Amino acid sequence: MFFASDNWAGAADEIAASLQRHSGGFSPAYGASDLDKQLEQRFNELFEREVAVFFVGTGTAANSLALSAVNRPGGFVLCHREAHLIEDECGAPEFFTSGARLAPIDGSFGKIDPNALRRGLQRFDPEFVHHGQPMAVSVTQATEVGTVYTNQEIAGLAEHTHAFGLPLHMDGARFANAMVRLGSTPAEMTWKSGVDVLSFGATKNGCWCAEALVFFDPARAKQLPFIRKRAAQLFSKTRFIAAQFHAYLDDDLWIRLATHANAMADRLAAGMQEAKDVAIAWPCQSNELFVTMPAELAEQLRSQGARFYPWPVPEEFESKLAEGQRLYRLVTSFATTSEHVDQFLELIG
Amino acid sequence: MFFASDNWAGAADEIAASLQRHSGGFSPAYGASDLDKQLEQRFNELFEREVAVFFVGTGTAANSLALSAVNRPGGFVLCHREAHLIEDECGAPEFFTSGARLAPIDGSFGKIDPNALRRGLQRFDPEFVHHGQPMAVSVTQATEVGTVYTNQEIAGLAEHTHAFGLPLHMDGARFANAMVRLGSTPAEMTWKSGVDVLSFGATKNGCWCAEALVFFDPARAKQLPFIRKRAAQLFSKTRFIAAQFHAYLDDDLWIRLATHANAMADRLAAGMQEAKDVAIAWPCQSNELFVTMPAELAEQLRSQGARFYPWPVPEEFESKLAEGQRLYRLVTSFATTSEHVDQFLELIG
Amino acid sequence: MFFASDNWAGAADEIAASLQRHSGGFSPAYGASDLDKQLEQRFNELFEREVAVFFVGTGTAANSLALSAVNRPGGFVLCHREAHLIEDECGAPEFFTSGARLAPIDGSFGKIDPNALRRGLQRFDPEFVHHGQPMAVSVTQATEVGTVYTNQEIAGLAEHTHAFGLPLHMDGARFANAMVRLGSTPAEMTWKSGVDVLSFGATKNGCWCAEALVFFDPARAKQLPFIRKRAAQLFSKTRFIAAQFHAYLDDDLWIRLATHANAMADRLAAGMQEAKDVAIAWPCQSNELFVTMPAELAEQLRSQGARFYPWPVPEEFESKLAEGQRLYRLVTSFATTSEHVDQFLELIG
Amino acid sequence: MFFASDNWAGAADEIAASLQRHSGGFSPAYGASDLDKQLEQRFNELFEREVAVFFVGTGTAANSLALSAVNRPGGFVLCHREAHLIEDECGAPEFFTSGARLAPIDGSFGKIDPNALRRGLQRFDPEFVHHGQPMAVSVTQATEVGTVYTNQEIAGLAEHTHAFGLPLHMDGARFANAMVRLGSTPAEMTWKSGVDVLSFGATKNGCWCAEALVFFDPARAKQLPFIRKRAAQLFSKTRFIAAQFHAYLDDDLWIRLATHANAMADRLAAGMQEAKDVAIAWPCQSNELFVTMPAELAEQLRSQGARFYPWPVPEEFESKLAEGQRLYRLVTSFATTSEHVDQFLELIG
Repeated sequence: MFFASDNWAGAADEIAASLQRHSGGFSPAYGASDLDKQLEQRFNELFEREVAVFFVGTGTAANSLALSAVNRPGGFVLCHREAHLIEDECGAPEFFTSGARLAPIDGSFGKIDPNALRRGLQRFDPEFVHHGQPMAVSVTQATEVGTVYTNQEIAGLAEHTHAFGLPLHMDGARFANAMVRLGSTPAEMTWKSGVDVLSFGATKNGCWCAEALVFFDPARAKQLPFIRKRAAQLFSKTRFIAAQFHAYLDDDLWIRLATHANAMADRLAAGMQEAKDVAIAWPCQSNELFVTMPAELAEQLRSQGARFYPWPVPEEFESKLAEGQRLYRLVTSFATTSEHVDQFLELIG
Repeated sequence: MFFASDNWAGAADEIAASLQRHSGGFSPAYGASDLDKQLEQRFNELFEREVAVFFVGTGTAANSLALSAVNRPGGFVLCHREAHLIEDECGAPEFFTSGARLAPIDGSFGKIDPNALRRGLQRFDPEFVHHGQPMAVSVTQATEVGTVYTNQEIAGLAEHTHAFGLPLHMDGARFANAMVRLGSTPAEMTWKSGVDVLSFGATKNGCWCAEALVFFDPARAKQLPFIRKRAAQLFSKTRFIAAQFHAYLDDDLWIRLATHANAMADRLAAGMQEAKDVAIAWPCQSNELFVTMPAELAEQLRSQGARFYPWPVPEEFESKLAEGQRLYRLVTSFATTSEHVDQFLELIG
Repeated sequence: MFFASDNWAGAADEIAASLQRHSGGFSPAYGASDLDKQLEQRFNELFEREVAVFFVGTGTAANSLALSAVNRPGGFVLCHREAHLIEDECGAPEFFTSGARLAPIDGSFGKIDPNALRRGLQRFDPEFVHHGQPMAVSVTQATEVGTVYTNQEIAGLAEHTHAFGLPLHMDGARFANAMVRLGSTPAEMTWKSGVDVLSFGATKNGCWCAEALVFFDPARAKQLPFIRKRAAQLFSKTRFIAAQFHAYLDDDLWIRLATHANAMADRLAAGMQEAKDVAIAWPCQSNELFVTMPAELAEQLRSQGARFYPWPVPEEFESKLAEGQRLYRLVTSFATTSEHVDQFLELIG
Repeated sequence: MFFASDNWAGAADEIAASLQRHSGGFSPAYGASDLDKQLEQRFNELFEREVAVFFVGTGTAANSLALSAVNRPGGFVLCHREAHLIEDECGAPEFFTSGARLAPIDGSFGKIDPNALRRGLQRFDPEFVHHGQPMAVSVTQATEVGTVYTNQEIAGLAEHTHAFGLPLHMDGARFANAMVRLGSTPAEMTWKSGVDVLSFGATKNGCWCAEALVFFDPARAKQLPFIRKRAAQLFSKTRFIAAQFHAYLDDDLWIRLATHANAMADRLAAGMQEAKDVAIAWPCQSNELFVTMPAELAEQLRSQGARFYPWPVPEEFESKLAEGQRLYRLVTSFATTSEHVDQFLELIG
């Protein structure tokens, strides 16, 4: 009954098997192997255009290097006030950009409000150095609270972003979960909707350690090889990431894993809806479910072996939180089984 | 016949198997799993004292974070003029320390000359801000040119370093190869010889991606959890590193792998000694062999499938390089077989 | 009728005269002259204890170096949401600290709310690296909107700050204006109230370019000589700053200048209170007056030669702003004369 | 008898007078005043083309911001091994560029050897990220050891620099002294010889604190307003710098001051040539004279009131230094008088 996070799982069998399969033999290091080259080509196909792709080790690295590539002195990155960038990366984006600032933008349920974004951008006067200058907008898909932007919503944010001459970055730590839910394609959910740079996460969806930084305009990535190496993110045996992506993208494994994780979240949601003393806080749109329940109930569930975390109450939800209730997050993954879910639902009764 | 680098190999069977074995199940992320904790304890035993250990993804990261932990404004790190830090990390140490400088120190065959180190340290006057200030000394063991410091030599450098109140860092990207050659122990080759911080590399010696940053005085590492996270080097599924170290350290696998790699280098050296037109440049003390030969011979070997790189001629070797000869590096690894070596020697004839 | 900012004035006569007086002769550079030493001693007397003082060129430099001195990886500085640090320094504090973040804290009329500060500090769990860690609290005295903390209020914020083991920084760009208004002393308004580090501004109050960074615990400033030099803030002819401070502190010039500036603001406030269509937004406590008036009136005044800027409406004032009114800031300085004020009041009628 | 440095002098009378003259009245801050605008125009005339000019507070700031403007990840700046950038700025260039490295290039008597420069540039392979990448070349005019490049020599270095697509920076801390010696013009000694960015120093030549960063291609300076503000180098009362430059450039004051300083150095040189136990180390080409003498003689001169510093012996001079002799630097300035010189020569006898 592990619903603490999707990174509590290990690796999908196919991923581990691929690593073992590629463990023998010799091949050039630092991204120059045939397998690396093959995977780069695979990303072109995946996104239906020529992209520049860079494998890195963590989602925080992908996000921070994406922002480094579009860095400007006194720069601001506008992102949702609860974005992972702001809340959970210990200042890595600021560090890698030598001090760019993350400007929190409002919006309900994890999604940037387009008007708030426009106002946030308008406050900068290009002649007024004191305030600094905007350098990028970043959206998270799926969001930190499990919701999903429609492609139209992304396109709307992209329009505001591009109107100010800025690039749109997407933090896709849970890219697959969102895409599967939308029934979209990688291309539609990104560059066709105006995304310029993507952190394409695979770790949470069944890999050990596989993140890809994708530039839809390769010209923008010209300095990235140096930026990545300087950031200690150029792995010597890059095959170990390429081999994971090889299995991940092969035969739609990634789609199947995400579909399963989402289905488990749905199953959890369906069951919770029936449960006494428990309420679903807002619709589950990916593999994260947010529910309210009394703290004692949560404590009791944990004592019976369930693992999940409380969650800070978003501003827009404060008034909806019933007295004595607290907010909790439940995350499913490729490794969650129906039995885990049903066992947990049974405990709740 | 792959002698280009020890990172052209993949992973040892035991490493890949361990990853597969640990791929199932759930456990806390970000270094809090039982396996992580168990490995931390294992490092205490390995080094015969309580250490603070941090798993990171690349050797460049380990080195750069080590220096970040001892950073000072206007700081200088004194290291050998051919150190990996200086030559091959694209400014990562400078970037992670926000501009500390690497001060090259002379010394023959990759080893810092103790007198040159002392002079390098003496040039700083603590009251004179214009020059900046020294912040650490870094040695590489084995060195970039395959030589190995004796423990006495390390202790000698440590003495100078400590006399100036500075910590001694060891870049141990090829730690095992050096230790096996010396017949030393992890403790003797490090803190017992005065090393304060160690980059303990395992990737080149049979892992996919496993580097550990070790502080012999845990008090010095108090900020490291934040430094590591801010540097995007805290992996979510840290189990994937811990599982590698588990197999690596278990049943002396690492010793066996390094012993094998060194033996292959010796076999290569023995064979080369007989070869016409080829000379061993300086004694092979780890798993790297440096030889001279005519460029045409090297080209011919490469056309027959051998892989190895030319190497910049160190100052102290310039006068010894015969006309028409060039310098080459041959690296062996856990994955090198006697057959590879013999096939290569046969080509040379 | 120049009320745009106190930095639109030049230098007080005594300051310019002192520069001229000290322009001849020779003396050691980089802060080692007798005059520099004498001024350092003068700061000890001024603050009634031994302090470490560093002359720098801009208020932004003083603030940024103060924070550099207490920097921590993943660090957060808590300050008022409208602080100069956040609003008007183009990311200098973040840049100088290699990415520390400024966390905006709420509070009415420019002053940090103590409960909001406590909550802001409590959200950090020292074991949870993802959020980063607090590193300092910064207050502005007088505030960006012309209000002034009482010494008791500062002491209250200091208590929360110190309870979390953090230093309290004061941005004293308008230190003199606040102190004069409180009828306090330099010592009472700073270390006796719990301030640890002070940006002591003199430029806005009659100097050309004279800012001092003051550490009440000199041990905390040990690295500052290197931090300052590395930040390009160690002037060669430091005499030019020392000579300004010499005149500034001599014979209470600074008190007289600030008293005059405040009196001019009071005169302006008294006159505006009578004016039709104009309202004083909140009490004038230093040399800044905030008023509301119709935009057309402001435009008309400007066309008649008056200089002043509109100001963003603080959250707590939004509901009080009458329809059709806008908010404006009027700043007086040592150079403002009664005639300027009266001429302006006459225009308003 | 103050020959320690040209920054031991205060300010020329005209500079101090100009500051006093501009101390009254009100004008826009942060570089927007009429005087600022007028001076910007003056720089266009001075350099016979449209330039982008930025006033900053220190030479270290000018140099560091120049390099920031051309910064690249993993970047190297090639400069003479004894350049001020390397030797005397406490890591400011590295800090402001977030870790760019200064690569020392050889050359006799402070001047970069063109062949050494070409070799230094050739070692970078644009595809090989491990070494980093070159980002600029910096020359110092006059050099740290008082020598002066001819315009042809500068053009030669510029040719190599531009061949690699890099900009050439000139550190002109003693620009006037060199230009006067060459009998050149500002335009000829800079952009007409291939210089792209100039640190135009005025502090050492009679100002209190006046340095200008000049871009000969204004397009290259587009981000500089943000870079300067973020570096805390945008002064609020910029008039205080503009007023200095106003007097400095007016009626050729700067030429007269530099001519005088150089003449004093020549007078010193002529006198020293006669002196027993003293030898001129290399020709005096600006306002710095390097001489050798026994340490006891130097000590004796100092005890009689003379002020000057010993200097580290450059590599190329080591063999020429007679036994028992040490190397000393004597610097003259606008404030040095014939009496100072003669008094000193008399002491030497």
